[in-house]
Amino acid sequence: MSQYRTFTAADAVEYAREFGGVDDPASLSEAQEIGDGNLNLVFKIFDRQGKSRVIVKQALPYVRCVGESWPLTLDRARLEAETLTEHYKYCPQHTVKVTHYDPQLAVMVMEDLSSHRIWRGELVKGAYYPQAAAQLGEYLAQTLFHTSDFVLHPHQKKAEVARFINPEMCEITEDLFFNDPYTDHARNNYPQALEPLAASLRTDDALKIAVAGLKHRFFAHAEALLHGDIHSGSVFVADNSLKAIDAEFGYFGPIGFDVGTALGNLLINYCGLPGLLPPREAAEGRELRLNDVREVWNTFAARFLALAEAKTSDVALAYPGYAQAFLRKVWADTIGYCGTELIRRTVGMSHVADMKLIKDEAMRTECIRSCITLGRTLILAADHVEDVDALIARIRQAG
Amino acid sequence: MSQYRTFTAADAVEYAREFGGVDDPASLSEAQEIGDGNLNLVFKIFDRQGKSRVIVKQALPYVRCVGESWPLTLDRARLEAETLTEHYKYCPQHTVKVTHYDPQLAVMVMEDLSSHRIWRGELVKGAYYPQAAAQLGEYLAQTLFHTSDFVLHPHQKKAEVARFINPEMCEITEDLFFNDPYTDHARNNYPQALEPLAASLRTDDALKIAVAGLKHRFFAHAEALLHGDIHSGSVFVADNSLKAIDAEFGYFGPIGFDVGTALGNLLINYCGLPGLLPPREAAEGRELRLNDVREVWNTFAARFLALAEAKTSDVALAYPGYAQAFLRKVWADTIGYCGTELIRRTVGMSHVADMKLIKDEAMRTECIRSCITLGRTLILAADHVEDVDALIARIRQAG
Repeated sequence: MSQYRTFTAADAVEYAREFGGVDDPASLSEAQEIGDGNLNLVFKIFDRQGKSRVIVKQALPYVRCVGESWPLTLDRARLEAETLTEHYKYCPQHTVKVTHYDPQLAVMVMEDLSSHRIWRGELVKGAYYPQAAAQLGEYLAQTLFHTSDFVLHPHQKKAEVARFINPEMCEITEDLFFNDPYTDHARNNYPQALEPLAASLRTDDALKIAVAGLKHRFFAHAEALLHGDIHSGSVFVADNSLKAIDAEFGYFGPIGFDVGTALGNLLINYCGLPGLLPPREAAEGRELRLNDVREVWNTFAARFLALAEAKTSDVALAYPGYAQAFLRKVWADTIGYCGTELIRRTVGMSHVADMKLIKDEAMRTECIRSCITLGRTLILAADHVEDVDALIARIRQAG
Repeated sequence: MSQYRTFTAADAVEYAREFGGVDDPASLSEAQEIGDGNLNLVFKIFDRQGKSRVIVKQALPYVRCVGESWPLTLDRARLEAETLTEHYKYCPQHTVKVTHYDPQLAVMVMEDLSSHRIWRGELVKGAYYPQAAAQLGEYLAQTLFHTSDFVLHPHQKKAEVARFINPEMCEITEDLFFNDPYTDHARNNYPQALEPLAASLRTDDALKIAVAGLKHRFFAHAEALLHGDIHSGSVFVADNSLKAIDAEFGYFGPIGFDVGTALGNLLINYCGLPGLLPPREAAEGRELRLNDVREVWNTFAARFLALAEAKTSDVALAYPGYAQAFLRKVWADTIGYCGTELIRRTVGMSHVADMKLIKDEAMRTECIRSCITLGRTLILAADHVEDVDALIARIRQAG
């Protein structure tokens, strides 16, 4: 058994030679650290021809972007590897393949996805991947259905809930999504001009009660094994391909949290586009994002219902009409969690390129304002939006 | 460490001498097996003066009323002892005290409650305990609030959910509550004359979809550490005293399941009284039961809200108005689970004295019919009953 040590590039190459599963390990010669996230080291391992061959990812024992003052469990590497492995079982076409995991080093080896690009980066540039929304809907349906009570034996479900208990990563979400943006917290980060808007969130009774409900359901509703952080930066895309990565927030939670996070990041892009692209391209891009929102939900819902009809093993949940009734609750949760994603990415600490890359400060402020306002609208309306077309109508109305 | 063996009365006496915690162990001389339940041996241990001093309860490795062909985990003794111990922490006045537990023998030692009587037996005789309903509401509020996300630290809550995972006992509920009565199952047991009524449950779309939702929430909603079987046979009463016992179904589930089970058994008595007592006493008894229903809910809700206001540690859930909003969902669950309790005790296999002791067969059939009909009404109405007065109006309307 190896003891934990932080990898250097040379360590990563050596590790990839031993555990990378490549045919010609001796050819692996170089590592480039590409981790742009907040929590981990990510090494791309190249061979002597300069071709990237595998990824070596190591969890750090603290939050990378904050430093050693914010320690964080290494067990999240296990949770990520095991979540991705479960999701790969049910949706190999849209889940990165984990080929090796070492609990002592908190290291995993994964397939190289250099042929892909991070979806957020593409969305920010105005690049369009017409199949991505449907593929993300497929990923959500396959992974969430197959880890739900519809299909897992009740004994297995309970054991899986215990296996995926993830207190420290859940706590980050509990704080950053549901607490900080609705209080006057030092971690919050928004333009000074939006102080009145941000302050108004803290005293909006209906909003705070709705957010409390969303947090409570995040605590208590163990519906399926979530990805837990399926934003557009956790998704690789290429022509006709989509792969989910970065599942260290995986745990059994409400299905609408994953679907809402996915839709939320499309809507953050929708709100940011007027600041990122010239007016005409921005307007076209916004229409594409609304189509993406429709496509993610419609594909998710249609595939989930088809799976429920074909594969539900629980005799009560299999009754015709129940899956539809359940999806109506998932839909309401989806809109609510989508709204919290819009707000935590603008009022809270974790900002994204869709807003950060807007160069004009006044424009950036207005894009952030529209994102916060839309987030609030969605949280408040969550129980009263008939369907995805009604949702899109509300989004257009919100500006 | 002792190995499991089934206790004889002599074993139970010897065990009580060693672990009973009495001042004069040598005086313990005799044991009487009083287990009338389906799952366990229960010994009352007497001293030489013929006074009962402690209870020794041992789990059997199979369902007692069925036999060794239905094996059942001995771990349920741990789950019972630990659930009662947790509940005792928060509501010592209404929880039986467990003084010793032995995992190898699946044995626990508990305080003797010979001064008390099982509530169901009293209800069947028409004996009234005016404080019992409020005390049961207090027990439900204290135990369910203090084991909920309102007050447990999120890390502790998740660890507790794992500690109380209870697959085998939950499976009994999953089958007997939510499957059997709504299918043509060999375990079902109802008067032949009610075949058309029972058959109609199996094809009532709205009912089956509602029951699927209740089962799904029983699977997935880890709101608090439930007693899991808090019917009137799990409750001891005496003048101004009430004690909950028999918590081997304890697990983290929906709060409305416990509250609904409690109300359900009061309503089973309500439905049975016309067959148990002369008309005038029956009518008076029924009014008392409706008062009990009101009192259980009102006490539970008022105490839960007072605890939420005074002791909520989660900053989001503490927002004024949230606990009230949450209790509206608990109320809907309560009515639904109450309905499933009425049906599983009449159509399903586990019958109770409130019906079994009705001597006149035609009358018994009519009482059972009214119970099934009321159960169906409640399940279908669960989301649309404004408050406890509206519930009582519906119960009167149902006949």
